[in-house]
Amino acid sequence: MCANIRIPKDSPFSIHNIPFGVISTPDNKSPRCAAAIGNHAIDLAKLAESSRLDHLDLGPFARDLFSKPYLNDFAALPRISRQALRESLINDITHGRIPEQCLVDLDNVVMHLPMQIQGFSDFYCSLEHVQNCSETMVAGASIPENWFYAPSVYNSRVSSVIASGRPVRRPYGVYYGDDGKPTYGASREIDYELEMGFFVSKPVSYGSVMNISDVEEHIFGFVLLNDWSSRDLQTFEMKPLGPFHGKGFGTSISPWIVTLEALKPFQCAPKWEQKPPPFDHLRWTNHHGTYDIKLEVELNRNGESFSLGTSNLRYLYWTPFQQLAHHASAMCGLQTGDLIGTGTISGDTTDSEGRKLELGCLYEATKAGTKEAEFSNGFQIKYLHDGDEVVLRGHCGNKDCDGVFLGFGECRAILLPAFDRV
Amino acid sequence: MCANIRIPKDSPFSIHNIPFGVISTPDNKSPRCAAAIGNHAIDLAKLAESSRLDHLDLGPFARDLFSKPYLNDFAALPRISRQALRESLINDITHGRIPEQCLVDLDNVVMHLPMQIQGFSDFYCSLEHVQNCSETMVAGASIPENWFYAPSVYNSRVSSVIASGRPVRRPYGVYYGDDGKPTYGASREIDYELEMGFFVSKPVSYGSVMNISDVEEHIFGFVLLNDWSSRDLQTFEMKPLGPFHGKGFGTSISPWIVTLEALKPFQCAPKWEQKPPPFDHLRWTNHHGTYDIKLEVELNRNGESFSLGTSNLRYLYWTPFQQLAHHASAMCGLQTGDLIGTGTISGDTTDSEGRKLELGCLYEATKAGTKEAEFSNGFQIKYLHDGDEVVLRGHCGNKDCDGVFLGFGECRAILLPAFDRV
Repeated sequence: MCANIRIPKDSPFSIHNIPFGVISTPDNKSPRCAAAIGNHAIDLAKLAESSRLDHLDLGPFARDLFSKPYLNDFAALPRISRQALRESLINDITHGRIPEQCLVDLDNVVMHLPMQIQGFSDFYCSLEHVQNCSETMVAGASIPENWFYAPSVYNSRVSSVIASGRPVRRPYGVYYGDDGKPTYGASREIDYELEMGFFVSKPVSYGSVMNISDVEEHIFGFVLLNDWSSRDLQTFEMKPLGPFHGKGFGTSISPWIVTLEALKPFQCAPKWEQKPPPFDHLRWTNHHGTYDIKLEVELNRNGESFSLGTSNLRYLYWTPFQQLAHHASAMCGLQTGDLIGTGTISGDTTDSEGRKLELGCLYEATKAGTKEAEFSNGFQIKYLHDGDEVVLRGHCGNKDCDGVFLGFGECRAILLPAFDRV
Repeated sequence: MCANIRIPKDSPFSIHNIPFGVISTPDNKSPRCAAAIGNHAIDLAKLAESSRLDHLDLGPFARDLFSKPYLNDFAALPRISRQALRESLINDITHGRIPEQCLVDLDNVVMHLPMQIQGFSDFYCSLEHVQNCSETMVAGASIPENWFYAPSVYNSRVSSVIASGRPVRRPYGVYYGDDGKPTYGASREIDYELEMGFFVSKPVSYGSVMNISDVEEHIFGFVLLNDWSSRDLQTFEMKPLGPFHGKGFGTSISPWIVTLEALKPFQCAPKWEQKPPPFDHLRWTNHHGTYDIKLEVELNRNGESFSLGTSNLRYLYWTPFQQLAHHASAMCGLQTGDLIGTGTISGDTTDSEGRKLELGCLYEATKAGTKEAEFSNGFQIKYLHDGDEVVLRGHCGNKDCDGVFLGFGECRAILLPAFDRV
């Protein structure tokens, strides 16, 4: 029997979206691939079994494609095959042709990491964020010249990337204590970072490069990403090799991957004109460069919710497409399932009292924890407390107007206290 | 029919060694696990088929364990099971009980990466190397204080780790040109780095920590590692997030993993006393701390061979065991197959004319390429030329004396010219 699926008007998983994820359910604990529509997941493993996908060109292993606990094999298919599946799903949903036994209420699913992640690189590409951080590190400092010539990036930690909902624990490490001396103990400065992430689809083999005009072939889709940061560990360890444990105790991502196809109506030009103009391998002509994706951060503390700010992907100085082109330019290779973090995304909008409304982390808002950050709702904060829950959200379009609206769902995690040990 | 295997006296793969690797052969192109003895590889997949390993406790999948194209499943077994296999091999070799059809001449094998690598972290732990680099970056500079409180480390690139024998190509990237302006082009400063690497056996799950007293349970064995570096790209990109493309165009490793069991006779105290004394989680009492492994670098240029220097693992200020304990201390998780680079290993021995004989890279020897480095054989060099081949070797013991001798074989790669493009 097939289902007429009701899609609530304000659902992030609208008919224009059809994001992909990995689910398990109480009656089937094996993680497998799914798509989301309204309040439901479509079990794609079951749908493939039902032969409803047999008319599509999903390769020789089509029936097994979605029974895997990750989307890598699907993401590695040619873009045109993935598009065909998406269109087929939209068609079947619209015409009430999805078999009921393939639908699961989203309240009843456990979400897993959607991809088997091979590499995780994190960028540092928001002009406002970099300006705020530079000034905070050294009073009066401006952005270093090299930043304007190539997107700044480091390799981050794959093993600590976790799906939304899983808690993060305050880590131990070495930091400068109150007496200025190196001290080993539980971090005292836990921060969030508002980022997006995107997953690589078509790989770039080691020793090869990728042309920026082909970049859309190589990106599967986007998620929200909270790059949890320990500012005291990071400050201690960062010179000269960059962040390690300060970023390695947890990176949360939203579990539903929103595809480039869904995002297409929201392509737009980036906020900043690039001066100097980028080198040739970072210039593009065949697309708009970035997406208009509205972002927001909420903090839940002691049963109350506070807005910590908003932002937008299009604020990034170096666009995600330029990030991937830079990444691939020195032949390091990219594998299907590589996760690219955009870096913290800050903006410069202020309220009537001059408060910045678009800071992507507390480090900026509190000037490295030297003062309380005040938010328009009167809430004050330095760094995160044990038990704090940070929720990122993102959407495209306007749910109160007609037209295309879609969202990313949530990227949510609670901060647990440090282990009781020295 | 079983074979009496002749083991040349100077073979790195002595009866005391029994390293593990992944091979393929002209008659069987499928990569599979092997051990090395003398001039032969023992095809462990075939040996397992022959039921000669059935008396060992290698888990429920013993027959399939070695037919995989990586050693991860074997490395993940309890240490005692791996030791039992090793002892069984030594016994069977000694008593001429290895079936002839399981032996392949090493000249006829292709070596592959021995492990499916999940993460690759690279340290910066040689006091002499860090002192030389600090002085080269800023005249008169000393080592920053934080370096003495915790082993310095960054996440490096997994996708560009390659097995010995595969060439490395000169990358493109952004560097400061002769006029001091950022320039995009082929790197002009390619360097090698003499390191060792070690592979994680027993994992440490995300959110957990590892006690340094358990560290030997978590290390499978060691390889030689050449951390190819582009100094001009690295200099440009490094601030503030550390190296990326400067280290991401290739990392060569020797293909045979020498186990902790083989290295046990060569445990020794490190060269340096640590001042200040390390924090508790980096102190050990149940082992000697490091290994006496002699290292050497050879350059082949235009048909001639030059020695670029020697070194020793025990020179490291922070030992490999401390490196892994630090790595695991902030709950990032370690997976079977994670590769840890020790960082460049330099020493301070000089010849009668005051020339340093133990520098682990050209950056040190040439003061960042500002002068030609002169070697005792009269050879002069700044950075590497297209066509140069760098070979690392390492061994324990003395092949000219009685007693235990073993080696790592070679880590070898040629530098190819940059692609012909802008």
